[in-house]
Formats: sequence, C-alpha cells, structure tokens
Amino acid sequence: MEPIRIAGGSSTEFGEFPNRTGREMFAEAGQGALEKAGIEPNEVDALYYGNFMGQDAENQGHQGPLMAESIATLDAPATRVESACASAGFAVAEGVKAIRSGSADVALVGGMERMNNLETEETTASLATAADDLYEIREGMTFPGAYALMAEAYFEEFGGSREDLAAIAVKNHENGATNPKAQFQFEITTEKVLDAPMVADPVGLFDACPITDGASAAVLTSESYAEEHGLDAPIAITGSGRGMDNLALQDRPAIAQTKAAEKAADVAYDEAGVGPDDVDLAEVHDCFTIAEVLALEGLGLFEPGEGISAAREGITSADGDLPVNLSGGLKAKGHPVGATGASQVVEMAQLLEGTHPNSDAVPDATVGVTHNAGGTVASVSVHVLEVVA
Amino acid sequence: MEPIRIAGGSSTEFGEFPNRTGREMFAEAGQGALEKAGIEPNEVDALYYGNFMGQDAENQGHQGPLMAESIATLDAPATRVESACASAGFAVAEGVKAIRSGSADVALVGGMERMNNLETEETTASLATAADDLYEIREGMTFPGAYALMAEAYFEEFGGSREDLAAIAVKNHENGATNPKAQFQFEITTEKVLDAPMVADPVGLFDACPITDGASAAVLTSESYAEEHGLDAPIAITGSGRGMDNLALQDRPAIAQTKAAEKAADVAYDEAGVGPDDVDLAEVHDCFTIAEVLALEGLGLFEPGEGISAAREGITSADGDLPVNLSGGLKAKGHPVGATGASQVVEMAQLLEGTHPNSDAVPDATVGVTHNAGGTVASVSVHVLEVVA
Repeated sequence: MEPIRIAGGSSTEFGEFPNRTGREMFAEAGQGALEKAGIEPNEVDALYYGNFMGQDAENQGHQGPLMAESIATLDAPATRVESACASAGFAVAEGVKAIRSGSADVALVGGMERMNNLETEETTASLATAADDLYEIREGMTFPGAYALMAEAYFEEFGGSREDLAAIAVKNHENGATNPKAQFQFEITTEKVLDAPMVADPVGLFDACPITDGASAAVLTSESYAEEHGLDAPIAITGSGRGMDNLALQDRPAIAQTKAAEKAADVAYDEAGVGPDDVDLAEVHDCFTIAEVLALEGLGLFEPGEGISAAREGITSADGDLPVNLSGGLKAKGHPVGATGASQVVEMAQLLEGTHPNSDAVPDATVGVTHNAGGTVASVSVHVLEVVA
Repeated sequence: MEPIRIAGGSSTEFGEFPNRTGREMFAEAGQGALEKAGIEPNEVDALYYGNFMGQDAENQGHQGPLMAESIATLDAPATRVESACASAGFAVAEGVKAIRSGSADVALVGGMERMNNLETEETTASLATAADDLYEIREGMTFPGAYALMAEAYFEEFGGSREDLAAIAVKNHENGATNPKAQFQFEITTEKVLDAPMVADPVGLFDACPITDGASAAVLTSESYAEEHGLDAPIAITGSGRGMDNLALQDRPAIAQTKAAEKAADVAYDEAGVGPDDVDLAEVHDCFTIAEVLALEGLGLFEPGEGISAAREGITSADGDLPVNLSGGLKAKGHPVGATGASQVVEMAQLLEGTHPNSDAVPDATVGVTHNAGGTVASVSVHVLEVVA
C-alpha cells in the first residue's frame, strides 16, 4: 500500500486543565500540526476527530463541525469517530483510509478529551460506558476491577507479580520525566508503586494512568502531495490495522490475551510488509501496567508469558533492546482518552525523526509501532510508522 | 468513481419501543440486511455504525464492537461514527470510502437510536448536545426554537406561511400511511397541523418529527464483488458527499439557506455525474417542516425561495413531478437519530428497485437523492442512488 506521510504533528500539554474548553485545546493541537506541516487550513480535505465523553463532559456532541471551525477548515468534511479510549487511533485509521480512497490528499487527524472539569465520580461513570452496561457495569464491574481480573488471569496462566508490574510504572515515569508535554514529569520508585493504595488487587494506584485533559493532531498526506509540495515529511504510516473483540470480558474464551490487538497487528504488519522482529520501538496503551504486558504480547513483540518480565529485565527501558513508551506512556504522559491514539502517532513520528526529547535513546530506529486500545481491549488500532525519506 | 452496489437493506419497525435494547434492534436490522443480500456475516470487511445519544440513553459508548458482535462479524473492524442526526449518513459515507480505498469489498453500514426509554426532558437535553453548548444551549436555545428562527428568516427573505409548511406535514403523513415501517401510519389534515399546540412560533407540534426508537442497515459492495458473486444488486450509490457549516446559527452569514447541504450536494452530484435536473425523487431530512424546504433548496432541486410552495402546489407529492419523502420522511416514518441516514438509503434503494410499498408512485425513476442533516444543518451527508443494472 502507498505509505501515508506524516507532515506535522502537535499536542497540547497533557494535564489537569479544567478551565480549558475542548474546542480551544483542539484548536491549539490542530493549528499547531498544520503550522509544522506548512499547510494552510483550506488545503485540508478531511478531518477525522476522536472524542469519547464530550457529550457528558462538555454537554457537547456533534463536535466534527465544531472542531473543523476551530481550525478554519469548514470546507472539509469533519467526522467524529468514537471507539472509547481508541477513538483517536480509529480517527488516524480513517484519515489513512480517506487518502487511500482518493477522496483526500491531506487529512487532519486527531482527538481531544476534557475530563477534569467533572467530579471524579462523574468522570468514572462516563468512562464506564466503554464497557458493557448490561452485563458488566450493572453488575458492579469497574475498569480497575476488569484489568485486575485480566492481571490475575495472566498471573495464573503464566506467572508474574506486582513487582513485575511496578517495573512498568517506574520505567514509564522515567521516560515521562523528560517529556515536557507529560502530565507527570517525575520519577517514581518501585517501593512507591508497591506501597500505594490498592484500587483492585493487584492493581494499585500507581498501576493506573491518571485522568487527563488534552488534545493531539497530525497532518497526513499522500506521497504525491508530499513530493509535489516538497514537504519535510520523512516519516510515513505504512500499516494501519484495527481489530475487535467481544465487548464484555465474560464472552471471551481467554482474558490473559488480547485478540483485538493480534488482529489489528496482523493487518498493520501485513500492509507494511514488516513483522514484530523489525520493530525498533513501540508506544502502547498502558492504561494499567498489565495492559502494557498484554499489548506487547498482542503485538507479537514478546511470546505469551514473556511480556511480564520485559520491563523488570530492562528490555523495554530507554536503553533496552526494544524501548516501549519512551513518551512516558499513558501512565506518565497522561491519557486524555479521545486524544491518546493520535498523541502516540505524533510522538512516535518525532521519536523516529529525531526531534523528540527522548529520541537520543533510539538514534538508529526506523520502524515504530503504536497500539491504542478501547475498553478492556475490545477495539484496537495499530499503526506501523517507518522512516521513508 | 466506481459505483458502490447496495446488496441489501433492512430496518426495524420505527416507533416507541422503550424495552427494546439497542443491540437487539441493530441485530435485527443488520442481520436482515445481510440475509437480503445473501451474504454471510464473516464476509463483511468493515462495519460503520451511526449512533448519537447511546452514552446518555443506554449508558453505552463503544458500540462498534458491541454491534459487530450482534451481527457475528468480530473479524471486521467496527467503527462508531457520530455527527448528530446525520450520524448514519456519515456511516454510509465511510462505508463507501472503505470500499473505494480497497480495504473492503463488503461494508455493512447503518445506525441505531434508542430514545423512548428516557424521560422526554432527558431525551430533549441529550438531543440538545447537537447544538453549540457554550453559545446556544446555555443561552436557552432549543431545537424547535432554532428551526423557528430559520423559518422566520426564510419567511422574511422569501415569504411563506404556516399553511405552506403544513402542506409538507400533510404530504409526508400521506406517504407514511402506506409504509408499514413508519411510526405514524395515518393521514392528517391541514387544519390539524394549524390547530396543534404551538411549540416555537411558527413551529407547531405537527411541524416536528416524533421521538423514535429504531435501527437500519445496508450492505454495500464493490462492483467487482457484486459481479463475481452474481448478486441481485441493481441499485448503486454513485455519489457521496459531506458538507459542514458553523455549529452555531449565530456564526453563519445567513440562516435561511444551508451551506452544508450545498457543499455535500456539489460533491455527490459531481461524483455521480448528474445534476439536480436529473433527480427523480428525494428523501430529505424533514426533522421540522421548514427543514424540508431548506433541504430542497440546498440540494438545488428548487431555487431559493421556491421550495416553500412545492408541497402546497403538489410538486413534491407522490403524484407530483418530484416526489419527496415517499417513505413518510422523518415526520411520519419517525426519526431514530442515529439510524435515519441509513434508513433513507435503504428506502430509496427499495423505491428505485420497485420493492417499496410506495414504489408505484415512481415506476420510471432512475436517480434518487438522500439528504441527512445534523444539528441545525451544521453537517450534511448527501448520497446519489441510481439504477445501474
């Protein structure tokens, strides 16, 4: 398939900004991405925008035209895409598809979430709509509880411990400490993770990502557009896959593996013509520490049962063989749910082109993978990014 | 552009079904469409699904994988698309694009909305998130109020009366009376419309569409797939356009015309290689009677100022020169917001192929147009359907 060039990307600072409106945050990210690309708003042919809980958080649905307006592109169709915490990954995938379909040469893709303006229990209730209301939420399931079940199932099948998981949190905070966009720019210790209040055994407070406000956007173009306009766009999306699983955990034959990620990765690798062995670094959806383990195995980067020790053994740290979540991941960078999938692509492109604060860790990297998951990994978007110019 | 074949379509009955779950309704529509097409669920390559207020109405976001599961297609990526009342029109457009991109040969497109399980004021509040919360809703704007402003602006610029609008409601009820899927299968008189309680002058109760539960789905395929599999799919989508406008009425230079519809129609006509003069019949978004007028003019089927008298003069009635909303329209068929755009395409295909209860009105029709609008026409999807085989 034709590689889709990433001409520019930008994110707001991630953090607690209860007084910033969604439209303001997306305008900053979207306009920033266009400026970096050197592309005027009226050159945009399509806008795909991820958002999960705006109807609850801002009493605002129908955000497609609103966000198009915020970046001055009312001539381009603007479409909101929602797939829970994978909303922006799905928006990126739609932008790729729009260019492949021939209906767009330039697509602006991204997302935004505003979460801290609500009371915490309201935000939690809104997030819960990403699981199955009839068969999970009404029975008392919570997201920390669901990931705790997945962790326990993993431990039972393959072994592993809270110490293994804690190493993931420690690693991602190490990476986030040097990312000026990250919500948590500080390191933490294993002891701090293990001594933190328990949320749902074995998921403690520091095994979970924070509640975050923020927006992120990228400008995608066709090869021919990038070449004709002499764009400085050395990084391309060469593979874009999506995968699905049953919404409710109870309907899955196994919950210590993520079929949706496996399906999405198969498609993305196949399109890119690469395999897990070619991957130099990854940004994965670590909403909880166990989720990073499941992601690494779902992507085929580790065999089942071997992802759990990757961080503790240093394989996935910045100076390891396969750095994972050099951005800080959802754990430290933060997780504005409707923006996360786009921010993974934006930061991966920067890491590969050498413009990210943490690029020094991967000077020779040419292939990166992003993994964005919705709910309890019922929907996944995977993108393969490569240095092509 | 390659025509996209409509291999099958199906809708649930539209009406008040507060005890039917969303997943159950979409399963009926989606499985029905696949059965009519003679296509197995595992042949579906992509699912695009429109829903607007499920996070409020059913406490259920992340409906992509849920709906994929409901029709047994977990191997296909499933993506929720939201553009307020145009959500399903946008889902159809994404399905068209998926096939054109080469990533799908078979796309299931549709939508669902469940609205009557909430209290009416909750449903109204949820619907209001389709307008601009900061600058419209918080100031007291309501949707009937907004369309009343648009009607008043139209009357002031071009003339027109409540009697003209009433003729639209009467016509659409006439059509709905013979549609077994319609929520209102009865006729009404001009007197009944004019004597009904006023909601927001000049919009009376019978100028507004009802609150509806329902689902609709269509199976789209590439030309090559339809031919190779010998499908009975004589109708194709030959043009698919989307258009945007400012979300808030106050930001538009004029509110008696709908720029979003004009933009969407331009793209759709251009792709299809047809013009307004070629159109034999239309299904348009008559959420309020004035909306039908604005739609007809936005589509170029009538000059500005001439759409208002079309129904009263009989031009758009079943036996007129240009039948509009032979299904009964949103007014009589009902308006499950996330499903409406798909149901327009489903019923238009049936009208053109001669299998709709009201097909007798248009025995020689070959070109139909569908028009699905979000909010106060801030987003619009237009599709051109043609008899191609």
